[in-house]
Amino acid sequence: MSLMEIQKAVITAAGRAQRALPLQSLVDRDGRTKTALAIIIEEALAAGITDLAVVVAPGDVETFRAAAGSHATKLQFLEQPEARGFGQAVLTAREFTGAGPFLLLVGDHLYVSATAARCARQLVEMASAHRCAISAVQSTHESRLPYYGAVGGRRVHGQDGLYEITEVLEKPTPTEAEQRLLVPGLRAGHYLCYFGMHVLTPTVMDLLADAAIRPGTVQLSPALAELARRERCLAFEARGRRFDIGNRYGLLHAQLALALDGQDRDEVLTLLVELLASRELGRNA
Amino acid sequence: MSLMEIQKAVITAAGRAQRALPLQSLVDRDGRTKTALAIIIEEALAAGITDLAVVVAPGDVETFRAAAGSHATKLQFLEQPEARGFGQAVLTAREFTGAGPFLLLVGDHLYVSATAARCARQLVEMASAHRCAISAVQSTHESRLPYYGAVGGRRVHGQDGLYEITEVLEKPTPTEAEQRLLVPGLRAGHYLCYFGMHVLTPTVMDLLADAAIRPGTVQLSPALAELARRERCLAFEARGRRFDIGNRYGLLHAQLALALDGQDRDEVLTLLVELLASRELGRNA
Repeated sequence: MSLMEIQKAVITAAGRAQRALPLQSLVDRDGRTKTALAIIIEEALAAGITDLAVVVAPGDVETFRAAAGSHATKLQFLEQPEARGFGQAVLTAREFTGAGPFLLLVGDHLYVSATAARCARQLVEMASAHRCAISAVQSTHESRLPYYGAVGGRRVHGQDGLYEITEVLEKPTPTEAEQRLLVPGLRAGHYLCYFGMHVLTPTVMDLLADAAIRPGTVQLSPALAELARRERCLAFEARGRRFDIGNRYGLLHAQLALALDGQDRDEVLTLLVELLASRELGRNA
Repeated sequence: MSLMEIQKAVITAAGRAQRALPLQSLVDRDGRTKTALAIIIEEALAAGITDLAVVVAPGDVETFRAAAGSHATKLQFLEQPEARGFGQAVLTAREFTGAGPFLLLVGDHLYVSATAARCARQLVEMASAHRCAISAVQSTHESRLPYYGAVGGRRVHGQDGLYEITEVLEKPTPTEAEQRLLVPGLRAGHYLCYFGMHVLTPTVMDLLADAAIRPGTVQLSPALAELARRERCLAFEARGRRFDIGNRYGLLHAQLALALDGQDRDEVLTLLVELLASRELGRNA
């Protein structure tokens, strides 16, 4: 069986509350100052992606082009016509993704991999080998369920951290999760929650287009639930950490994680110690 | 002698390399997420300023208006006509400042005060009491001279941390500093360097206008040197710390300082300990 090639990626950055986040400035693991958008683009490029589209709100193209820096020439910018939810932002890229599978990333998440391969690369390699849709997930405590989409499923025999998805619920209650999303082998009270990156097949665009006929917002999770009924969909526990820079202190958290994992670790540890030791900033100053 | 009232402030944010910095998002000491611009505006408002102008690059008005958030209605935006240096950015506000003194702040510096009064308030109160131009300064090691303007002067008798300025040099060499900027009583190898905030008199606008007749960039330090020859100019060691968010890790440094000095100190200390303890991010993972 040949590998499935994933050449295209879609990055969504059109959400009203999240629009400014990809424009934030961070120092990456390589010690270079970049926008969050540039770091996400590099996550996709490192996964072997050659065609990239960024979905933005109307009027944001020039701002995002500037924020993409030297990567701007590699990108297409697509304007989401109306603010009708995450699913509709993805659907905006339907013509761009065409008949092939694509990597989906969100503009307000950054990743620090625990291995030499970046998280998106781990996911793309897994999708390519298994020739199907696959979502990165993380085992997440039930107290965090209100923030994520979550999946239920069964382990793929002989493949550590790989699951066949049978259920998808957006922000389930603990009771719903216990009834429908229990996955054998996870720690008690833990569920597989989405990690913010997927490899999807063109079918998901058909499902989103169907959903968009009805008025109102279009969410991705119901389309992923339907996708799992129609096609084989896997969930993969990516080796790494996700940082939602839209959270309070999310940017700080991401910046510290990048710095402590990167070439400037000692410099930033020194900065931390100096700050903590500074009498003027101490609580008892 | 009556007090000098300082009602106007100018914030410069037009420098090519610094334009994006006031738009960066931080969590302030009060736990609220704001742009750096909003934090700087609040620094000015807390100093009793009632009229505020922000000098931006052409085309940046709408972006900065959005970044000012709820403060936008209190601001005037002025477009620097050409990119001819910091002095010319200040000069752009000449009509706005008119015949009165004004507080000058830069859009890429944030402050954490060591006292209940914010740094700009300390400076404005000192200017108001002494009825003259006054620059905030910090005792700075000679190794940092390449980054700052520096002043020489003599102590004002009976006033701790207050100096009468006799010399101003932009980014002096250690030899120049030793010959012209030695201030008795500072630690060995230390000089008084600008802190990024000044209260200035209208004379400085005349001096900048004279300088702008010549082609090329217009710097502020030569005008401040000339101002000190014409009028009494003081330097004041503000009680607090300055964070240049244009430096590498400057945003991280500022965010940590704000958080460790603010209401979320314990939350951020917990985040730090968790990150440092995380095996996946450890050097030996």
